[in-house]
Amino acid sequence: MNTFTYYNPTRIEFGRGKENNIGEMIAELGIKRLLLVYGTGSIKKNGLYDRVIQSLTTAGIAFEELGGVVSNPLLSRVHDGIKMVKSHDLQAVLGVGGGSVVDSAKAIAAGALYEGDVWDFFIQKASITAALPVYAVMTLAATASEMNGNSVVMNDATKQKYSISSVLVNPKISIINPELMMSVTPEYLAYSATDIIAHTIEVYFTATEHPRFQSRLVESIIKTVIETTEILLKDPLNYDARAEFAWASTQALNGLTNSGTGGGSFPNHMIEHALSALFNIAHGAGLAIVIPAWMKWYKGQNPAQFERFAQEVFGLKTADEGIAALEHWFDSIGAPVTLSAANISRERIGDIAENAHGLALLWGMGEDYSAATIAEILQNA
Amino acid sequence: MNTFTYYNPTRIEFGRGKENNIGEMIAELGIKRLLLVYGTGSIKKNGLYDRVIQSLTTAGIAFEELGGVVSNPLLSRVHDGIKMVKSHDLQAVLGVGGGSVVDSAKAIAAGALYEGDVWDFFIQKASITAALPVYAVMTLAATASEMNGNSVVMNDATKQKYSISSVLVNPKISIINPELMMSVTPEYLAYSATDIIAHTIEVYFTATEHPRFQSRLVESIIKTVIETTEILLKDPLNYDARAEFAWASTQALNGLTNSGTGGGSFPNHMIEHALSALFNIAHGAGLAIVIPAWMKWYKGQNPAQFERFAQEVFGLKTADEGIAALEHWFDSIGAPVTLSAANISRERIGDIAENAHGLALLWGMGEDYSAATIAEILQNA
Repeated sequence: MNTFTYYNPTRIEFGRGKENNIGEMIAELGIKRLLLVYGTGSIKKNGLYDRVIQSLTTAGIAFEELGGVVSNPLLSRVHDGIKMVKSHDLQAVLGVGGGSVVDSAKAIAAGALYEGDVWDFFIQKASITAALPVYAVMTLAATASEMNGNSVVMNDATKQKYSISSVLVNPKISIINPELMMSVTPEYLAYSATDIIAHTIEVYFTATEHPRFQSRLVESIIKTVIETTEILLKDPLNYDARAEFAWASTQALNGLTNSGTGGGSFPNHMIEHALSALFNIAHGAGLAIVIPAWMKWYKGQNPAQFERFAQEVFGLKTADEGIAALEHWFDSIGAPVTLSAANISRERIGDIAENAHGLALLWGMGEDYSAATIAEILQNA
Repeated sequence: MNTFTYYNPTRIEFGRGKENNIGEMIAELGIKRLLLVYGTGSIKKNGLYDRVIQSLTTAGIAFEELGGVVSNPLLSRVHDGIKMVKSHDLQAVLGVGGGSVVDSAKAIAAGALYEGDVWDFFIQKASITAALPVYAVMTLAATASEMNGNSVVMNDATKQKYSISSVLVNPKISIINPELMMSVTPEYLAYSATDIIAHTIEVYFTATEHPRFQSRLVESIIKTVIETTEILLKDPLNYDARAEFAWASTQALNGLTNSGTGGGSFPNHMIEHALSALFNIAHGAGLAIVIPAWMKWYKGQNPAQFERFAQEVFGLKTADEGIAALEHWFDSIGAPVTLSAANISRERIGDIAENAHGLALLWGMGEDYSAATIAEILQNA
C-alpha cells in the first residue's frame, strides 16, 4: 500500500430542504458579500433560485450574480466572474447547479486572488496558493465537485479542456439535496452514471497497487450506481435511489478510492476531454464511448484486476465478459458506446487523438499515450 | 436514506516515516508549545519517542510531557494534563500512542479551554464549544481515534467509562505509519480486529435505514479486517497487510459508515464499557464476549440485515450461520467469546448489567436496555 495524504475538509449537508439554510451556514463563517454562480436558468424555473436568494437575504448576505454557465464551462465566463469579484470586493463564491457551475465557482475563487490569468493554473504555469471560500448547492450528481478540489474548464479560444486540483478550492460546505436532482433527464442520468463509474475505474485499473479495501470501495460504488440508475430510469422520483446514487457519486471522486493505490492515471478522461472539447458532447456520453474501447486495449496490462472486476461487479468470470457487460450496460441505459452513435465521423479520429495527446503530455502520460496509440484505442469505438 | 451532516476535517498522513516530519507539520500551523501525551513507555524502548522529540526540537516546538496513560485511560491523568496545559500556557496537544493516548489528548484539549471539570462533557452537563488543536501519531489501529472526535475516558473514582464526541477535538493531523504497529502482540491484534468489526456492525444492524453503499462499505471493511488479521497472525511484519488493516480501522469509525443510516445505536459498546470498567479487561476482548451474545438476542429485530451479513461477509445463508461464523472467527484469532474465557464469574452478571444500564440511560437506550434485558443478553455469553 502506497504512502498518501488524505485531507478532505468539505462539510456535506445532505438531505431534503438543506438549501433553505445555505445563507445562515455561510453567514456563520463571517461572509457578508458573495458571487452567486449558476447555469442557464433551470434553477429560476423550479424555484431553487428564489429559495437560495431568500436564504441569503434573510442571513444578511449581499450578492452579485453570474448566470449562464454552460456544460463544458467556459474560461471566458470564469474571467467574467473574476472581474466581478474584484470590482465588487466579494468574499466568497457560491455555485448553485451541477459540476460545471461549481467547477466555474472554484476557478473564479482561485483566480480572484491571483494577479495573472487564471488559465496559468490550468496549464501548470502557476500553482494555487490562495482562494476565496467556495460553497455549493448541487442540482446534479456526477462530478463529485461538491467534495473535491477539482475544476475542469474549457478555454473557448484554444479549445483546450483542462483542469486544476487544489484543496484550497474544496467547497467549505456543499448541500446535496436529492430532491433537487429529480428533474434530471433520463439521458443525463445515464451520462452521470457513466461519469461516476469512470471516476472509479480509472485508478482501479491503472494503479500500481490494489489494496483490498479500495478495490471493494470501487466495486461497492459501481454496484450501487448500476442498481440505483436502473431504479431511477423507471421511477425518477424515488428519493432513496436518488439519494444513494448521489452519495455514491460523491464518494467516487473525493480522494478515498485512490488512497494508498499509488494514484494511477486518468486515460479515459484524457481522451474524453478531447471528444467534448471538439464536439461539445456531454462528458458522460464521451466517456461511454471511450471506456469500453480503452478497456479492450488495456486489459492485458492488468489481467487480474480485469478478472476481479468481471467477478465482483457482474458475477462473471473473464475480463472480456466484464468489459462486454459494462458496454452492454452503458448501451442499455441509453449512453452511446460508439463514435457513430454520437454522430462523430471516424475520419476525425486523428484530430481527436492529437487534441488528447496534448493533454496526455500535460498529465505526464505522453509516453504511454502517443497520438498514434490514442487513435488505435479509438478504432475500438 | 436519512438526512445527515458529514464533516471530517482531519488530515491523514499515511505511510513509512511520516512521524519524522510531525514537528514541521505542526509548526506550519503556528504552534510553538505543546503537551506531549504518551503511554507506559513502549515508545521510549522502540525509538519512536526519540524521533518525535527530534522532529519537534528541529521545528522549534517546546513541549511538556505527560506519560503513563493506560488503556481504559483515566480521568485523573486527564486532569493532570489539563493542569499542565494551563500552567505552561500550552497551545496544542500531541498524542503518541494508541486510542487511549489520543482519547486522553482530546479530553485534555477540550478541558483546557473550559472553566469547570472536563467530566461535565462526559456526563452531558456541558457541551464542548472550544478546544486546543489535537495531533496524533498512532501506534495501534483499532479505535479510529485518529480520524474522529470521540474520546472514551474512565472516571477512576466512580468506575464510569463514558465518552464525548465533537469535531472540535478531531485531530488536525494524524500520522498512520503501519511500521509503528508491527510490534502489536497477536493478542492485541485480535482485540483490535474485534473492536474494528464492532464499530461497523453496531449501526449496520441497528440503523433505521440500510443504504446500499453504507452496507457494502461495512462489509468491505469487515472482509478486509478478517483477511488481513489472518495474514498478520502468521506474518506480523507484512507491511501491506498491516497498512490495509490500519486504513480499514480508520474507515470503520470516521462517520462514513453511518452517513444516511439514521445513526443506529451502540449497544455492544454500552455493555462492554461496563465489562472493562469493572474488570479492566481489554475493550476488544470485552466486545468479543458481548457481540455474539447480543447478536443472538437481537437477530429477530432485523432478520434481513442478519441474513445479508451471513451472505456477504461469510458466503453463508442464514442469520444463525453468520453469527456462528463470526463467533467462531473471534475464537479462532484468540479473542474470548464467553465470560468464563475472560475469568469473569457469571455471578457478576447483575453488577455488569447495572453498570451498563447507567450508560444506556445516558445514551438514550434506557428503555430498550433495562438492567434485566442486559442481564438476559449476557446469559448468552
